[in-house]
Amino acid sequence: MKNKILEKLKQSEDFISGQEISKELHMTRAAIWKYINILREDGYNIESVPSKGYRLVSLPDILSYEEIKEYLKTDFMGRSIYYFNSIDSTNKKAKEIAQDEQEGTVIIAEEQTAGKGRMGRSWVSPKGKGIWMSLILKPTMEPMKVPKLTLIGAAAVHKALENMKIKAQVKWPNDILIDGKKICGILTEMSGELNMVNYVIMGIGINVNLDEKDIPDQLKDKATSLKISTGKEINRKELTANILNEFEKLYISFKEKDQMNEVLKICRENSILLGEEVKIIRGNDVRIGKAIDINENGELLIKFEGDKVESIIAGEVSLRGND
Amino acid sequence: MKNKILEKLKQSEDFISGQEISKELHMTRAAIWKYINILREDGYNIESVPSKGYRLVSLPDILSYEEIKEYLKTDFMGRSIYYFNSIDSTNKKAKEIAQDEQEGTVIIAEEQTAGKGRMGRSWVSPKGKGIWMSLILKPTMEPMKVPKLTLIGAAAVHKALENMKIKAQVKWPNDILIDGKKICGILTEMSGELNMVNYVIMGIGINVNLDEKDIPDQLKDKATSLKISTGKEINRKELTANILNEFEKLYISFKEKDQMNEVLKICRENSILLGEEVKIIRGNDVRIGKAIDINENGELLIKFEGDKVESIIAGEVSLRGND
Repeated sequence: MKNKILEKLKQSEDFISGQEISKELHMTRAAIWKYINILREDGYNIESVPSKGYRLVSLPDILSYEEIKEYLKTDFMGRSIYYFNSIDSTNKKAKEIAQDEQEGTVIIAEEQTAGKGRMGRSWVSPKGKGIWMSLILKPTMEPMKVPKLTLIGAAAVHKALENMKIKAQVKWPNDILIDGKKICGILTEMSGELNMVNYVIMGIGINVNLDEKDIPDQLKDKATSLKISTGKEINRKELTANILNEFEKLYISFKEKDQMNEVLKICRENSILLGEEVKIIRGNDVRIGKAIDINENGELLIKFEGDKVESIIAGEVSLRGND
Repeated sequence: MKNKILEKLKQSEDFISGQEISKELHMTRAAIWKYINILREDGYNIESVPSKGYRLVSLPDILSYEEIKEYLKTDFMGRSIYYFNSIDSTNKKAKEIAQDEQEGTVIIAEEQTAGKGRMGRSWVSPKGKGIWMSLILKPTMEPMKVPKLTLIGAAAVHKALENMKIKAQVKWPNDILIDGKKICGILTEMSGELNMVNYVIMGIGINVNLDEKDIPDQLKDKATSLKISTGKEINRKELTANILNEFEKLYISFKEKDQMNEVLKICRENSILLGEEVKIIRGNDVRIGKAIDINENGELLIKFEGDKVESIIAGEVSLRGND
């Protein structure tokens, strides 16, 4: 009902009377007043003038379904959104509900109090400044092929940024960088049997409008935000929807036609690793090689001394000289 | 407190007076009476004679920690047990609590109302007649190596049966058979990142004392129970503990020394597939080949026409001619 009143307000250029809303939605004036106040608490700036009624003055900068849907062109991605003002971790929440939810369900929070990065690391997720979301996917595939999904996520984020005229680079397999600093990380988690995925959770964290002060000192040389790097505020709603739009297109190609061409093209052409000397870290084992390609399986091909080429599924790879 | 009273009763050959229990455990006679009744509800047959006190007449056939611990020789496997009279699925419960529990925690239920087999199939789990349990494991390993754990489980069950003089066969990767019919299935599920396992749930279902009538008609030619095949009731407590004992030994060798020798020996020597022509089913693709070995990674090696050898991680393999 709250959303129906919001729709009415959004449709009216000017004031809309309580009487009119009351008549069209079959509710009392008191009930309307109650929902208007809930909308105000959500951040909607609603003017009320006794003789005229209600007028929507401005929309809040929040990532609820009501706010992103005008940009959304998807069939199923993001058509069911669990939206939180604050949460411990969107991936954690997604894992709790994944078994019972449909593919394409998305968890979005304005803030994560215990955001997760890969390998149990933490992810700084200050309130209202980023896109902290987790996608629930249910592909029929073997666990070994899951790394491909991470690349689809990276390609979708890259393309969404490009749509908004922001130039970024892909660091295989799960980061997006601008000027060599991270603005997006993807954490893919899965649950499955040995030869069958139950579900995949793809956490996507994007530093959108973080200011310098929002980035911890020890991360300042490794991480940045879209606002810091472009010098302007970015529309989070539009970017969120854009990512979901691009993701759905690439994901459908993959699911229905096992087609990864565009994903690989994006990841290869905008790669920060390909052609470079890289360090590959596995436990205590550190090796140096040259990243030469990303293969059809989404694996990174590394050429080691003696021209021996190995493929890597996932792991710690960094440009030589960097950490 | 209930368990302390149970200990006292177990230690006494004859009657033990309420007064003595009261004094040693610092509790009122009324409280003792309350716990005695709870123990009776759990299935303990406790005689009470006003002038003499309490006497434990017989133990219930249940798989609580209190009942299996006398057979348990483990350090961590099964040292924390969640025991249920009835549950939907032990694997489901294990997945719910795995993140917060320690390695070696076991979920055991007398009955599963929605027991799960592989690939979303159901598993018949009638009350008090089988061992329906799930082990929570937290190995530091890559998801690709998880298939090895299933073999450790299969080897542990096989060895536990052998300890109890029951001859069985292993059907790679996750079934134990007697006379060609299934008496045990293992369902390994995992949660993890691309290159790191968070946890593994190993569901082990064993048809112990099921009678012919407990086995659905459509499964009678494929499944049996230990009782049906050996002609006698099997001690479920002893078998449960035996499996955990054997599992822990094999698992520690694997974790600490990456040692799979004994597991592979058991799975190879008692394999029902090796040396046989088998059908390999993947989706709609059915192929015939000869199972020739299980390699160090726990994969099944199949020799196809033209002597081409392929390794299989997990999947649908059956003896040619069988389903």
